[in-house]
Amino acid sequence: MSRKIVCRLFVVVAALAVVFTDQSALALSRSEIRIPDLPGYTTLKCDFHLHTVFSDGNVWPTIRVEEAWADGLDVIAITDHVEYRPHKDDINVSLNRPHEIAASLANELGIILLRGAEITRSMPPGHFNAIVLEDCDKLNVAEWRDALQNAAEQKAFITWNHPGWLQPNIIPIWYDEHTEIFNKGYMMGIEIVNDHEYYPLAFTWAIEKNITILGCSDSHSPLMFDFDNSPANRRPMTLVFAKEKSAPAVKEALLAGRTAVYAYGKLYGKEEYLRSIFTQTVEIVNPEISITGKGRGFVRLVNHSDIPFQLSADGQADQFTVPGNLTIGAGETVMLPITNKGMLQGKNPLRIPFKVDNLLTAPEAPLSVEFNIVVDFINK
Amino acid sequence: MSRKIVCRLFVVVAALAVVFTDQSALALSRSEIRIPDLPGYTTLKCDFHLHTVFSDGNVWPTIRVEEAWADGLDVIAITDHVEYRPHKDDINVSLNRPHEIAASLANELGIILLRGAEITRSMPPGHFNAIVLEDCDKLNVAEWRDALQNAAEQKAFITWNHPGWLQPNIIPIWYDEHTEIFNKGYMMGIEIVNDHEYYPLAFTWAIEKNITILGCSDSHSPLMFDFDNSPANRRPMTLVFAKEKSAPAVKEALLAGRTAVYAYGKLYGKEEYLRSIFTQTVEIVNPEISITGKGRGFVRLVNHSDIPFQLSADGQADQFTVPGNLTIGAGETVMLPITNKGMLQGKNPLRIPFKVDNLLTAPEAPLSVEFNIVVDFINK
Amino acid sequence: MSRKIVCRLFVVVAALAVVFTDQSALALSRSEIRIPDLPGYTTLKCDFHLHTVFSDGNVWPTIRVEEAWADGLDVIAITDHVEYRPHKDDINVSLNRPHEIAASLANELGIILLRGAEITRSMPPGHFNAIVLEDCDKLNVAEWRDALQNAAEQKAFITWNHPGWLQPNIIPIWYDEHTEIFNKGYMMGIEIVNDHEYYPLAFTWAIEKNITILGCSDSHSPLMFDFDNSPANRRPMTLVFAKEKSAPAVKEALLAGRTAVYAYGKLYGKEEYLRSIFTQTVEIVNPEISITGKGRGFVRLVNHSDIPFQLSADGQADQFTVPGNLTIGAGETVMLPITNKGMLQGKNPLRIPFKVDNLLTAPEAPLSVEFNIVVDFINK
Amino acid sequence: MSRKIVCRLFVVVAALAVVFTDQSALALSRSEIRIPDLPGYTTLKCDFHLHTVFSDGNVWPTIRVEEAWADGLDVIAITDHVEYRPHKDDINVSLNRPHEIAASLANELGIILLRGAEITRSMPPGHFNAIVLEDCDKLNVAEWRDALQNAAEQKAFITWNHPGWLQPNIIPIWYDEHTEIFNKGYMMGIEIVNDHEYYPLAFTWAIEKNITILGCSDSHSPLMFDFDNSPANRRPMTLVFAKEKSAPAVKEALLAGRTAVYAYGKLYGKEEYLRSIFTQTVEIVNPEISITGKGRGFVRLVNHSDIPFQLSADGQADQFTVPGNLTIGAGETVMLPITNKGMLQGKNPLRIPFKVDNLLTAPEAPLSVEFNIVVDFINK
Repeated sequence: MSRKIVCRLFVVVAALAVVFTDQSALALSRSEIRIPDLPGYTTLKCDFHLHTVFSDGNVWPTIRVEEAWADGLDVIAITDHVEYRPHKDDINVSLNRPHEIAASLANELGIILLRGAEITRSMPPGHFNAIVLEDCDKLNVAEWRDALQNAAEQKAFITWNHPGWLQPNIIPIWYDEHTEIFNKGYMMGIEIVNDHEYYPLAFTWAIEKNITILGCSDSHSPLMFDFDNSPANRRPMTLVFAKEKSAPAVKEALLAGRTAVYAYGKLYGKEEYLRSIFTQTVEIVNPEISITGKGRGFVRLVNHSDIPFQLSADGQADQFTVPGNLTIGAGETVMLPITNKGMLQGKNPLRIPFKVDNLLTAPEAPLSVEFNIVVDFINK
Repeated sequence: MSRKIVCRLFVVVAALAVVFTDQSALALSRSEIRIPDLPGYTTLKCDFHLHTVFSDGNVWPTIRVEEAWADGLDVIAITDHVEYRPHKDDINVSLNRPHEIAASLANELGIILLRGAEITRSMPPGHFNAIVLEDCDKLNVAEWRDALQNAAEQKAFITWNHPGWLQPNIIPIWYDEHTEIFNKGYMMGIEIVNDHEYYPLAFTWAIEKNITILGCSDSHSPLMFDFDNSPANRRPMTLVFAKEKSAPAVKEALLAGRTAVYAYGKLYGKEEYLRSIFTQTVEIVNPEISITGKGRGFVRLVNHSDIPFQLSADGQADQFTVPGNLTIGAGETVMLPITNKGMLQGKNPLRIPFKVDNLLTAPEAPLSVEFNIVVDFINK
Repeated sequence: MSRKIVCRLFVVVAALAVVFTDQSALALSRSEIRIPDLPGYTTLKCDFHLHTVFSDGNVWPTIRVEEAWADGLDVIAITDHVEYRPHKDDINVSLNRPHEIAASLANELGIILLRGAEITRSMPPGHFNAIVLEDCDKLNVAEWRDALQNAAEQKAFITWNHPGWLQPNIIPIWYDEHTEIFNKGYMMGIEIVNDHEYYPLAFTWAIEKNITILGCSDSHSPLMFDFDNSPANRRPMTLVFAKEKSAPAVKEALLAGRTAVYAYGKLYGKEEYLRSIFTQTVEIVNPEISITGKGRGFVRLVNHSDIPFQLSADGQADQFTVPGNLTIGAGETVMLPITNKGMLQGKNPLRIPFKVDNLLTAPEAPLSVEFNIVVDFINK
Repeated sequence: MSRKIVCRLFVVVAALAVVFTDQSALALSRSEIRIPDLPGYTTLKCDFHLHTVFSDGNVWPTIRVEEAWADGLDVIAITDHVEYRPHKDDINVSLNRPHEIAASLANELGIILLRGAEITRSMPPGHFNAIVLEDCDKLNVAEWRDALQNAAEQKAFITWNHPGWLQPNIIPIWYDEHTEIFNKGYMMGIEIVNDHEYYPLAFTWAIEKNITILGCSDSHSPLMFDFDNSPANRRPMTLVFAKEKSAPAVKEALLAGRTAVYAYGKLYGKEEYLRSIFTQTVEIVNPEISITGKGRGFVRLVNHSDIPFQLSADGQADQFTVPGNLTIGAGETVMLPITNKGMLQGKNPLRIPFKVDNLLTAPEAPLSVEFNIVVDFINK
């Protein structure tokens, strides 16, 4: 929320001359995150894993809504622990309460709030979120198998949370219990990013087994303790490509696997989704340039999204040179310099291949893209 | 609270140590400044007053082009002093040189570069810029009257620079010489903002005498010594509403008085221009709301421009309350809370008047705007 | 100009993906606020007015400790409303609970946590804080007079909170009830700054009636919703000049009136305190300079504190010129240029008077300071 | 120079109400970089490689002084290319001119300015700087051997610049010519960091052959085009441990090899220098803590320098757990959590070994440090 601060300075300083009367307004403002819609789908920014004082979190449920609104999100789920309630001496009520408390503000701010809860057991099988739930309290049963089954009976969307958390080297382990859960159809989603952790192996499993990928903040304290709105330190989120902005459409998209994960400046997901986002947002301002002699010409690339793209040259051609690395910041225009090695003359179509290092279709598999331009090489 | 963002930066550099081949690219990137076009005109961001090492400035001419590109400008003029050349022991060449040196890069980056020079005499009449010039050296004559006449014969656009500079309390004085210049038609433009100074009296004169207003950086050192890209500390600029993006169209618009000045978060200009910019960029997301009892409802206002708008309530209604002040940051959405005083029932159209304190149609004359909404007041 | 800093952030995260085991540490780090001790006293930074979920706040009590630690504070009081408990459907326990919950972490982090509560009545007399309390629940009585008396019997330090809040134009009104409270000795302190409001009239009353001044955040949401650690937008705080860092010493200093208020870049308090802070932290690096002819010399001023100082010239001398305004940023060195008007020759001691516009000993009364230097004026 | 911006906002906004009169002061302010002195030596921050418009740079020489002052440097050398003068059509004077032009301002600001020049030949042997020169023009000879010899005869300090620049993968190659230069005693220093490049192999050579290491910006454009004052993106610099702050003392220290390189958040140099800096600046606030049961205690570590330190655990003990990674930001205090594994009871001295990953005594050789604390393990 860095951009806001500058603006706020105006008000403050002007106000000190007299007095400040802005108190009734929300302290926060919202900045949209520019990520394009996919053909036929609207791109919703979602955080499906959040805690409040009703389990072991440290904020009131409405704070989760205000944070989400300010952060440019569209959908959140509050998912307090069913079995772990360290504040129960002071707060000992239904686990449906956080949702009930936050629902009105969410509606007022246009945030879709999904009812959720976290089934919290030791590994295996570990923690599982159930979202789009009807009644959180029904999950409070002795056996984890019963809890999952109950969630499924409520037609909840169920995900395996932070599969590598507390495992050696943060590498997830797939136990027999996970096979059992998967075979029952309960492993509908899997977090490949949770808080500050990323699990490449979970990403691989998701691809192999066709499990929907999620990235979640799992925030317990105020979000700003851990994240800000810079591209590199933004809260992790799940991009959901939904038929419309509604709770049922979010659930449909989750079940259909139409998600990507945006976390720490990287975008993880299916090639078609990532390619669509890249090609819609990176534009060549001047696709025809001329270069004189062994000189240099500039192709201007503009990034219309709020996702910075980090390109690395995918090999080098014999006839011309491009930089090994190029980053196109959020909303920025950069220069791609092309240097003639002297072998080309006249108008030539050039195909310049790059890897987009922060768009990953699988672990270690950056998206391949090409810029197609025409260069007129002029002899001196 | 300084979260550990700074620390995380480190790991990066390890990578740079291994490969860093980005050296041939420009160090800077460009961020566009989102200000809408006016009906029939394109909005060009311009700085018509810049110095280089060729007079008393401290940068090479190409730097002015790189800075302008990075800052989101479309048009600049290099206007070195004709008569004041403190570097002449080391640089003693034609005053057309800075333009010649910078022209190629300007063309490559899509920046319109106007040839200019500053006629630099003691007050009265002070300093005058001539831009869209053919030959700067011809202005190097003994009499200032001859210099201005020569500029006019070259069909240059002539402006009175920083009229309040070095005057007591920075208040400009209109001497007989200025009447003479005005009567000859040579006072085509006047700087109401120069560097960090603003001259309200010059703004008043410009309105009364129909002189085109300009805001210029008059930068001598690297721009970043004095300015950054935050809304409150951006370089001053002249917005030119031109028929197209071309040097002749810029000149036509200047002669026709189609400009506004954007400086230090404030926009100065004719009411029609300012109103068009405001109404095109501030949108009411939810123009129909409901309020229950003596409660509060939120109207969401989004600002699609990069100009923050600072609103103050233009009086308070008897039936409802709005905040005294509200700032809508660049690209942000804010909440306008409306509190029912209990007198209204059912659906009511409300007109909520505000002053936009940073959009000034004359000194001390903020733009008046109105938000028209419909509120459904619901009895509890 | 947005250099590619943002972009560089990325590579980092790659590393985090591989190993991120920092999770058990606190997310926040602490930055000390450099403000000097006064002779014989240690300067403690305090916020005596904070809310949690136990009344109408939105954070768990431990969050107030973590925020305070990160913000460089030494002392806080949690002061939940005695009578206003909107979360009571979910949280209905003793008002001593927030203190009990936060005490252990406060101890671990070296933060002094004072037990407090806010007696919350309509105006008159409005809201009063009682801090250094023994039992908050005892204040829960029908009559406000009884509540104040009970607090006094517990030997609490009692303050009138935000006296101008919700008053017309935020100007406080002194009712008969306040005279009654004052005469009983219960108006020991008064907030001259609360949240984003400043009450000059309360400051005047405090000076006239010898009431201890306080500045408090009165925060309900996460602190970062409203404040950051920039000098202009830091949380308001009370500086307490205590004999040592201990709860009893804080109380002794409060009762003795040894406080100042630091809020929004301004420091309010007694002249002796402000002068001591200024003279201890602003140093003239080179108190002897030479100026040749009608030239200019630079005196270097360094500010060893984290409080920026905003100076304005207190008149101009006939013999030399200094800038009208000069800001010395936190921890920065700036140049004070002195320009010879040509009347002085040889070594001259100069006394250069300034007002420190952001150090206020009373409303509209900036601290007067003088820089004493020696200038050797050399004829060319 | 980010901290300055916030402060400046004050002035601006206050000033807009009236007018701004601060124009005569320097635009920049100085922020010191807190790095401790070594026993017997003062730590000077130096940039020995800078260009101006007098060769292929883009700023006037005084700008290099202003930048250095603002950036907290103590010493710079302007080192324009002897043989490469692309601006010679407009500037064709002695290469001693940049030094002569900048000397007066350097003196006024307390910056030591060393006369320098860059002998600019194709590889081998590549580019060499000669600093603390008497006459730059004498290096303008046909043979590079003669140029180096002439520099040596002037008793200049000679360094091999950016040895890996334009080499495949930026890996330097040691040619026979370099052996020749080394054997003559002319390879007194070597850049291990230049601009955004780091050459680990050059660092290894420097250790093996006892060559003084340097890190230089080699800036051609305004410094702020490429760097800011954040720890991760600060201009590269050479730390010189000199007997006093004077030009001769700088030269003595360079010849004696008492330097370290500070670049992109990393510090490169001899173990004794790095250890002294670390131990002087990282302090354990509470070296005695207690831990109850299998719980967790916090050791508070404060970093009194402006260099962030990145620690990684050097193995894990059987009896307790510490985080794998911990960063102590510039001027910050962080918590080092220590978790009991349950095997220890009573007071135990613990030695906790860490690697400081950004303090490198050789390529891939982080400094080893130990924190010595006492923990009282209390049974529940």
